[in-house]
Amino acid sequence: MKPINIGLFGFGCVGQGLYETINNSTNFSGEIKKICIKHPEKHRSLPQHLFTTEAEELIHDPELDIIVELIDDAEAAKSIVTQALQNGKSVVSANKKMIAQHLEELVTIQQETGKALLYEGAVCGSIPIIRTLEEYFGHEPLTALKGIVNGSTNYILTQIFTERLPYALALEKAQALGFAESDPRLDVQGEDAKYKLVILLAHAFGLFVKPQDLLTVGIDQISSYDLAYAHANELEIKLFATARKVGDKVFAFVLPQFVHKSHSLINVRNEFNAVSLTGEFCDEQLLLGKGAGSLPTGAAVLSDVSALSYDYQYEYKKKLNSPREQFSNESLIEAYVSFKNPEAINLDVFEHITERHFSFEQSHVIGELCIEKVVRMNWQNNADVNIVLTTKEPSETLGKLSVGLLHKEVLALQEGKNVLEKISI
Amino acid sequence: MKPINIGLFGFGCVGQGLYETINNSTNFSGEIKKICIKHPEKHRSLPQHLFTTEAEELIHDPELDIIVELIDDAEAAKSIVTQALQNGKSVVSANKKMIAQHLEELVTIQQETGKALLYEGAVCGSIPIIRTLEEYFGHEPLTALKGIVNGSTNYILTQIFTERLPYALALEKAQALGFAESDPRLDVQGEDAKYKLVILLAHAFGLFVKPQDLLTVGIDQISSYDLAYAHANELEIKLFATARKVGDKVFAFVLPQFVHKSHSLINVRNEFNAVSLTGEFCDEQLLLGKGAGSLPTGAAVLSDVSALSYDYQYEYKKKLNSPREQFSNESLIEAYVSFKNPEAINLDVFEHITERHFSFEQSHVIGELCIEKVVRMNWQNNADVNIVLTTKEPSETLGKLSVGLLHKEVLALQEGKNVLEKISI
Repeated sequence: MKPINIGLFGFGCVGQGLYETINNSTNFSGEIKKICIKHPEKHRSLPQHLFTTEAEELIHDPELDIIVELIDDAEAAKSIVTQALQNGKSVVSANKKMIAQHLEELVTIQQETGKALLYEGAVCGSIPIIRTLEEYFGHEPLTALKGIVNGSTNYILTQIFTERLPYALALEKAQALGFAESDPRLDVQGEDAKYKLVILLAHAFGLFVKPQDLLTVGIDQISSYDLAYAHANELEIKLFATARKVGDKVFAFVLPQFVHKSHSLINVRNEFNAVSLTGEFCDEQLLLGKGAGSLPTGAAVLSDVSALSYDYQYEYKKKLNSPREQFSNESLIEAYVSFKNPEAINLDVFEHITERHFSFEQSHVIGELCIEKVVRMNWQNNADVNIVLTTKEPSETLGKLSVGLLHKEVLALQEGKNVLEKISI
Repeated sequence: MKPINIGLFGFGCVGQGLYETINNSTNFSGEIKKICIKHPEKHRSLPQHLFTTEAEELIHDPELDIIVELIDDAEAAKSIVTQALQNGKSVVSANKKMIAQHLEELVTIQQETGKALLYEGAVCGSIPIIRTLEEYFGHEPLTALKGIVNGSTNYILTQIFTERLPYALALEKAQALGFAESDPRLDVQGEDAKYKLVILLAHAFGLFVKPQDLLTVGIDQISSYDLAYAHANELEIKLFATARKVGDKVFAFVLPQFVHKSHSLINVRNEFNAVSLTGEFCDEQLLLGKGAGSLPTGAAVLSDVSALSYDYQYEYKKKLNSPREQFSNESLIEAYVSFKNPEAINLDVFEHITERHFSFEQSHVIGELCIEKVVRMNWQNNADVNIVLTTKEPSETLGKLSVGLLHKEVLALQEGKNVLEKISI
């Protein structure tokens, strides 16, 4: 097999990881021929002649077989990837934001050019989740996906619950160890997980969903009141990317959830990621591994480069034959909602309330409510409000709303009593 | 894409599972055109014209694109697979015994004929472990593999440790639920796990090892004395297929092992399987899922059939360029060895003893000993002797012997005392 000549954009953490994995791999035949960088003044560990600041030099170089795009800037990445594909080069990228924002268009460009775009490194670092969804579950009717897809937040939550660190200290520790960025917002607000969920939805359910349509709550709104509630109830909190198929609808969101010590994902600790898949044939499958880092992500990129050597392309199998499945937010979830100011919360939003607690310091309500309404109330962007799914798996509530009758008053009437009478406090 | 015409050998549990997964799959275009069976007198759920007892009818049918071999008889399977490949048909098989016994020859036949033999269903049912090793870890220098690869024994051990059932009752329950065969020897003696480990060694380390060269101890020699020891020490026992690379040597064996409640694989329960991989780039990866059953294994077979539609072949990447790694049994393990008759055990076999307990009923010794010596003493086939690895991971002892000096007397001398003085009882 002819050695592969790689043109690389970006030489940061993952780019250097790719360089190192190529140099230490077994049986890989290829090398990085040229690296396009933004800051020529930075000291580099490799010979100067490998570097350039001219993107065109790589995109138009007929000697380069493959373009690997590993830069931070999503818009610039989009332009590089598009140009490279249109210039007849297959591309590997790990830019989850860029891919999530433009996935449908990028699929069209692949179809038009016949060239491949692979992006295993964009989702869960070293876990081969995209390829597994495409190749192994391509014909399997999947019913659910639940993932811990962000290593920074999982590290912080692990420190909070196993070491009893306060949030700020846990974040500092994550930053000191390189598990969180100096600007951690993309991670702690759940944005990073959201982009990954968008990509997973395409390969698991054949759906192209806009990132902004996914209800996304991170871990930065978790208060000491919420932690006290979790500790008192012997629960932990995990940040999950969740998707479930109910009938022809697929519900998906990024939300923290309370989990018991017996939960199958409780031991996914620190910077590890995991994705659990449920299918009609296979029942439950779990993939667990390091979700980030220079070498794990570099190895994921290398596995894509290697796949391009035999002209591998994603087929987007689940999207073929226009599946009937549709993404929807019109569904119930059971959630714990905490807030400082009682006026921030309109209790009418809840279809059903099972617990409420009001105090001067902070209050909370537990009940069923529609995803769509949470989005409309914009609670996900209200620093005074936090939402955590209850331990009840969403499957038990999801989709119920489609029955159409389950609003608070009807339920109360059916049960012959006022719903508020059932409230514990 | 043209629909795939499948010729199927065998219509038992997995064959029927394949039929069902094909009929309920999303986007799979193909069908089972002909089924070769051994017992035409059995009642079948499908129309009679689909069945034949003549293997030649399938192997020489130019309309059939792919042969799927799902029969029990390993020798007959070998003949079918060989003939089909030589007749220009690609083949999918799930016959772990046949593949493990003839793997090197089957690879040669694939190279000679240019046709593919895929066998994802042969190892861990629904877990995509072979494809992941080939495609995703093809260039990753793996250092360790540890798997719970047999669902029957894992179910039995789970019942013994979580429900406190005695071995015989746990086995009966497994049989009643279809998790163990009426003749369970292949499973409980570790043979099934051994065949799977042989296949994993080829794809993870590029080694073709003869099944009989792997030290294999099952769970049928576990006595109530061993269970009492485990309970007293708050340990469980799991049956692991283990492989570790130390320098250029790869050590591999199927052995029960004591595990603490905190072990990363402790929650792989009942009929579930899991494989943990450790690589230089990726650190630890875990894949978990149902290791057997009609639909999970049928889905694995279907994923292979689907891969053949784009001419996928295993490249045996780790075998390429003749890797330096060699399989070896010349290494220390730390094990608990229990026995009824003290004369069955020659203590000189141990390089180092840390605990020994003798009683009229049953005795045990814990210490380090060479794999090669265990094989030579044939303890694995002595119903009066049981071997369980200690909680110390083999990595900590494996390979030490290669240093060349670590036998009992030298060690005792180096420490300036008689080894036996360190013995607890």
